[in-house]
Amino acid sequence: MATTSIPTSHHVKNLDLADQGRKRIEWANQSMPVLQSIRKDFIKNQPLKGLRISACLHVTTETANLMITLRDGGADVALCASNPLSTQDDVAASLARDFNIKTYAIKGEDNDTYYSHILAAIDHKPQVTMDDGCDLVTILHTKRKDALEGVIGGTEETTTGVIRLHAMAKEGVLNFPVVAVNDALTKHMFDNRYGTGQSTIDGIVRSTNVLLAGSKFVVAGYGWCGRGLASRARGMGADVIVTEVDPTRALEAVMDGYRVMSMAEAAKIGDIFCTVTGNKSVLRQEHFEAMKNGAIVANSGHFNVEIDIPALARLASSKRAGREFVDEYALRDGRKIYLLGEGRLINLAAAEGHPASVMDMSFANQALAAEYLVKNHANLEKKVYSVPVDLDKRVARLKLEAMGIGIDRLTPEQEEYLASWSEGT
Amino acid sequence: MATTSIPTSHHVKNLDLADQGRKRIEWANQSMPVLQSIRKDFIKNQPLKGLRISACLHVTTETANLMITLRDGGADVALCASNPLSTQDDVAASLARDFNIKTYAIKGEDNDTYYSHILAAIDHKPQVTMDDGCDLVTILHTKRKDALEGVIGGTEETTTGVIRLHAMAKEGVLNFPVVAVNDALTKHMFDNRYGTGQSTIDGIVRSTNVLLAGSKFVVAGYGWCGRGLASRARGMGADVIVTEVDPTRALEAVMDGYRVMSMAEAAKIGDIFCTVTGNKSVLRQEHFEAMKNGAIVANSGHFNVEIDIPALARLASSKRAGREFVDEYALRDGRKIYLLGEGRLINLAAAEGHPASVMDMSFANQALAAEYLVKNHANLEKKVYSVPVDLDKRVARLKLEAMGIGIDRLTPEQEEYLASWSEGT
Amino acid sequence: MATTSIPTSHHVKNLDLADQGRKRIEWANQSMPVLQSIRKDFIKNQPLKGLRISACLHVTTETANLMITLRDGGADVALCASNPLSTQDDVAASLARDFNIKTYAIKGEDNDTYYSHILAAIDHKPQVTMDDGCDLVTILHTKRKDALEGVIGGTEETTTGVIRLHAMAKEGVLNFPVVAVNDALTKHMFDNRYGTGQSTIDGIVRSTNVLLAGSKFVVAGYGWCGRGLASRARGMGADVIVTEVDPTRALEAVMDGYRVMSMAEAAKIGDIFCTVTGNKSVLRQEHFEAMKNGAIVANSGHFNVEIDIPALARLASSKRAGREFVDEYALRDGRKIYLLGEGRLINLAAAEGHPASVMDMSFANQALAAEYLVKNHANLEKKVYSVPVDLDKRVARLKLEAMGIGIDRLTPEQEEYLASWSEGT
Amino acid sequence: MATTSIPTSHHVKNLDLADQGRKRIEWANQSMPVLQSIRKDFIKNQPLKGLRISACLHVTTETANLMITLRDGGADVALCASNPLSTQDDVAASLARDFNIKTYAIKGEDNDTYYSHILAAIDHKPQVTMDDGCDLVTILHTKRKDALEGVIGGTEETTTGVIRLHAMAKEGVLNFPVVAVNDALTKHMFDNRYGTGQSTIDGIVRSTNVLLAGSKFVVAGYGWCGRGLASRARGMGADVIVTEVDPTRALEAVMDGYRVMSMAEAAKIGDIFCTVTGNKSVLRQEHFEAMKNGAIVANSGHFNVEIDIPALARLASSKRAGREFVDEYALRDGRKIYLLGEGRLINLAAAEGHPASVMDMSFANQALAAEYLVKNHANLEKKVYSVPVDLDKRVARLKLEAMGIGIDRLTPEQEEYLASWSEGT
Repeated sequence: MATTSIPTSHHVKNLDLADQGRKRIEWANQSMPVLQSIRKDFIKNQPLKGLRISACLHVTTETANLMITLRDGGADVALCASNPLSTQDDVAASLARDFNIKTYAIKGEDNDTYYSHILAAIDHKPQVTMDDGCDLVTILHTKRKDALEGVIGGTEETTTGVIRLHAMAKEGVLNFPVVAVNDALTKHMFDNRYGTGQSTIDGIVRSTNVLLAGSKFVVAGYGWCGRGLASRARGMGADVIVTEVDPTRALEAVMDGYRVMSMAEAAKIGDIFCTVTGNKSVLRQEHFEAMKNGAIVANSGHFNVEIDIPALARLASSKRAGREFVDEYALRDGRKIYLLGEGRLINLAAAEGHPASVMDMSFANQALAAEYLVKNHANLEKKVYSVPVDLDKRVARLKLEAMGIGIDRLTPEQEEYLASWSEGT
Repeated sequence: MATTSIPTSHHVKNLDLADQGRKRIEWANQSMPVLQSIRKDFIKNQPLKGLRISACLHVTTETANLMITLRDGGADVALCASNPLSTQDDVAASLARDFNIKTYAIKGEDNDTYYSHILAAIDHKPQVTMDDGCDLVTILHTKRKDALEGVIGGTEETTTGVIRLHAMAKEGVLNFPVVAVNDALTKHMFDNRYGTGQSTIDGIVRSTNVLLAGSKFVVAGYGWCGRGLASRARGMGADVIVTEVDPTRALEAVMDGYRVMSMAEAAKIGDIFCTVTGNKSVLRQEHFEAMKNGAIVANSGHFNVEIDIPALARLASSKRAGREFVDEYALRDGRKIYLLGEGRLINLAAAEGHPASVMDMSFANQALAAEYLVKNHANLEKKVYSVPVDLDKRVARLKLEAMGIGIDRLTPEQEEYLASWSEGT
Repeated sequence: MATTSIPTSHHVKNLDLADQGRKRIEWANQSMPVLQSIRKDFIKNQPLKGLRISACLHVTTETANLMITLRDGGADVALCASNPLSTQDDVAASLARDFNIKTYAIKGEDNDTYYSHILAAIDHKPQVTMDDGCDLVTILHTKRKDALEGVIGGTEETTTGVIRLHAMAKEGVLNFPVVAVNDALTKHMFDNRYGTGQSTIDGIVRSTNVLLAGSKFVVAGYGWCGRGLASRARGMGADVIVTEVDPTRALEAVMDGYRVMSMAEAAKIGDIFCTVTGNKSVLRQEHFEAMKNGAIVANSGHFNVEIDIPALARLASSKRAGREFVDEYALRDGRKIYLLGEGRLINLAAAEGHPASVMDMSFANQALAAEYLVKNHANLEKKVYSVPVDLDKRVARLKLEAMGIGIDRLTPEQEEYLASWSEGT
Repeated sequence: MATTSIPTSHHVKNLDLADQGRKRIEWANQSMPVLQSIRKDFIKNQPLKGLRISACLHVTTETANLMITLRDGGADVALCASNPLSTQDDVAASLARDFNIKTYAIKGEDNDTYYSHILAAIDHKPQVTMDDGCDLVTILHTKRKDALEGVIGGTEETTTGVIRLHAMAKEGVLNFPVVAVNDALTKHMFDNRYGTGQSTIDGIVRSTNVLLAGSKFVVAGYGWCGRGLASRARGMGADVIVTEVDPTRALEAVMDGYRVMSMAEAAKIGDIFCTVTGNKSVLRQEHFEAMKNGAIVANSGHFNVEIDIPALARLASSKRAGREFVDEYALRDGRKIYLLGEGRLINLAAAEGHPASVMDMSFANQALAAEYLVKNHANLEKKVYSVPVDLDKRVARLKLEAMGIGIDRLTPEQEEYLASWSEGT
């Protein structure tokens, strides 16, 4: 575990980057009308007055706007990175310098520093935690049980984190209620599907400039992220192949017009592979051995374990950097395999993560979930909670309003009809 | 209520149609490999031995194969229509003549006959009911409470029916457990999305032969049926507009690339309108008044109340039949509006309903749900139950096998990973 | 060659069908605003005054409106079928009874009758011919050279016909100028792509009610028809495979995201096959031998030679009718192959051919091409001519106007810019 | 006109960038199998032995591989940029240092330097010119007629250039034959459609990170570039609107499911605008005045005149840089409009231009066209020539082979059938 000593107020790469960061934070803000609306409300009503929040999130322009919203709601906020590669150093600098957020994050930080930053966020003595992958909560429950006491609740952003939290709750070790922001429709359906879909394509194209039209694009996993990615890859002209372990999802992919097969089969014909499963070793030795020369391999799932990189390294006689974010593995049989972004989420490593207008909804849910915890924590158990439906719909309604889109309302006659059961054929 | 006297063994249009019906039942059977597989199992194990089942379903070739499967599982089966227009008379004839199913259904039957057929099915003294829209269950709970006693449980095929059942359970009037077959993923996701999607397009094209490419196609409702229909309409080249009352669904439609607006706006620009909401009066006077000359109006929701036909009739100076399944309403201001299939589900009225391979999964769920009720009814309460997940996945797995598609299985290492929460970044 | 004796004024199935036919002709007319506009002009200016026209076209509601337009322009019109299966008997009846068109066409007529009808149309002593596949022109140049003298020109509707005409012109045997209506952008791009695309899907679904989503759909040929069909099959959720002989088109299909392979490979995996090549024996013995049990085989190319039906028959131990338009061939090894519509254009055999709004543009070109021949025949050589671009754009402009769509016009500054070459970077 | 004095052997930003450039040139080479194949042939047969070629092209990794191929075919090559913003400085450095190409190009060069670089390329005394937009040929025909004499022919890469050349030929001022490489199917269909489609999306996303799903995306122009862009924008989930001046293209866009309207209408509702017309002032004052606050404006047509930037500047009270490649124009009424890449081709300004695998085909055509000019120039007139069909198909065939895709070949029976005209119904 990390022993690096870091400053208490912030630890960022270079404060001189703050001007650039501030400008980019403002740019993102323009695409986050829902959060803007909540922020106005927070400024007026101060629902988080005096609350200490520690957040472990990707340090991006969108996260910055969430932090500022929380702060404007009265909170005292600390922020560390949820991934060593995803930090935008200029944003971190601006948060520390311009917005009074205790920020601990440096792009490319080593493992020790990564954990020392989480520990710094825990030293903030959070009453509410915000997590993206459950690393903060895990450290709290293992190395830093001392800091558990004051926590009234937490929020979790990702599918991966929610899976871990359910495992913790099942084992009876979870010590406070956590709102699974990921489970909000306005979060996972939009963020995972539309956000991950576009930004993963963006990351792959930026790092390789490969033509997707006519390529064989293998999507491992057909959850919301996989659905979004498959849809966008096809939208760019690729011939998309899906792999799955769940028969219902596999069948859905078939009905959506994709080819479905085992990865053992897909490995032989794919040009580009991208994992979005939430599982580990989805691409492993047996698959690398079957791949075509020139195959491109990437991950857009939360952790960098979806591709078994050590296995790839063992097969290779040499490894060298090619383009930025591309590592060329020369295998002993002469084939080359290209690994993107060191197997970390390619949409954050090589692109900019979800567009601001997607994060707008995720983070609106985060902000409202924090408010919800403050109001309701006394009545909550130590388990995983869904985002209340009303809150979810409120986010959707705010978004539609911001887009200038009007929808229908039920007439009284229709409401009555839906509530009745005796009117028939 | 009906007073028509009908025969006890069957009431069909013409037994001479049975040869044609039998051939078509066999054709459908070829596309129903999952039901075939269950039927083999039923023949061997007789799980429904001696059970009286009354089914109120669309009398189609696919339903015929379900009835035969239930019979082969040992059941004594009665069948009536769940819609006056959807009966295929040749199928009804063959079921009555060739397969020993008590069949009461005639295409185009009037309201009295329709209800007399439901009553005949109730006279069968069912132990298990199968419903498609909840008409059978509603009559049982209102006009024929005498027959309630022997019922151990029921199944329901549609969204509409499930809504009604939940209303009944909420009021405390539901008298036996009902399995919401509609809620199985292998049912609603496939049947509603892919089945309704294709067959609604089919019904509209058959009845009008209109070119969809370049048309403004308005889909009212963005549930599973609406998603499927919108996707297929776009796949045929239409410019698709979606209307909704739920903000989350409306936002999803926007993100899927459709235009979303109120029906008041859509009415002014649409060429073709199709309702799939489960609600009533979705298209009503104010909308007809705004429509373009030549607008085509159809419904693919369960009941024929989604379009307010009386309101349309009131606006019209005359009505005449055009092509088959097309009624031309000449409005007083000179515009013409074309109503398809009298506002009943256009995919059944003008086409053949869901393709057999879709109904294969829905009806596999029905057959397994009946078996489930026999085994578990003693432990079930008087409420609405979901299809057990294992049963749902079994259906998906059988389907994939029938298509020759292999999928991945979790490795032991992966199973362990998914169950753990301490492995992190 | 045919020796059947047929009446001189008309030869249709049953004049009693005329009422139904007339209603359907009027229905189609509503979707043909461009032809309506030309008809108004023709009525006023009589550009075809006294001209004898013989047309060999699919006898459909849309063709009926073209015939009426020509008649209203002053012409004396005879009409025979361009395909023995595509005649709509009620339309033929109405044309003969209500519109004074000499009509010779009966759905399902045998080969002898088919040719006797062409001969009857030639006995009309045409000055202008209208062909759909070049059968009328071929008979004129072989069996009925006597009637060649009075012909001032002809028009041809299809790719197939144009290929034959170019071969004739190359051999020096073509005896009059022919306008290749097919080559108009507003014809082949719309009719072949959007019309054939939708109507072929329609024909396949009507005849089989098979679910396209998740099926492997093989499109043979990637010309305009193939592009349209592939696009629509994908739009319905199929996994589309394309076969081609031309490398440029094959590459285009790859870039459009389809899988491309030889038919030898595709035969092994396809569920549904449809030929649209303009060539013969595209599906032949070697392919039938490789197909899966239950494979469905159809053609939407002009002639019924694209599928080698005799070869299929030789492989089969029995053949029987299944659903309407479906012949089941039971092969000796136990597999069954289903042939749709006897291998004739499935969109006409099992559906209604192109929607009226597509034929509107094709037939607007036909009508204007007839007028063009009358005005310009003196200056034309005995070869194949394209539709003049101005005429083509006039049709497009009329269509857009009918749809209420406004487009931009070049500003004077822009026109000047496009004409200049000296303005640079 | 430029008076800057520049070195004779090369003029690049920094030779120290050459290592990086070389690595990227090699990366691109891997995606250019067709050019690789031609290069092997050139090395062996030296078809360009001693030929002086001056190329005015975007200085990218793909162009580098073309230059190297020409050099390996025996040519003496000079290269300047065809756009001041599109040069990749590391590539220019490597070409100059490692590959003996006379390279004159610096990213962001001012207008004077831009023209001085063209003059330097002319000082090379080219026998063959290669142009991308016709700037080199224009200078040759205006300011440097002295260098015209030795030129045996040229090639032109773009639609824009071909339009200019046709204007020159029409005026009788074109002094040598030019092969319109742009007109090869394997060039414009793939490069313009698939290349521009993907790379324009890439450029817009990189510069803005805006979510395309749910946005109103206006494509001005529905030529090959516009078709590709519209298709990709829709593939990313946008609601696409098309504007056109040509009625046939406009109608095609309608049939493809897009909304078509005048720019005056589109300006009011679009979120993102991209011009791909080859014309000037497509977006102009009247449109800026109508746009929504926050509208994003980009161009992917050849020249930066498609957006009337001076008009935008006149409306603005201030202009400031936002994100990289984004200029914010604050209008006097408070609205902000964002101009991307200074109105130059956004796919080159903010992204990397066409992917290598697309340029592979364009540049294979370029290389083969140069060889063709050497062999055939004696028989060519001073006009614009298409790429011979055989050459075009050769490129397609090489590409399919490189992708491992086999296609069908005509059987002798089929070839005979296609050549005949007497076989009918």
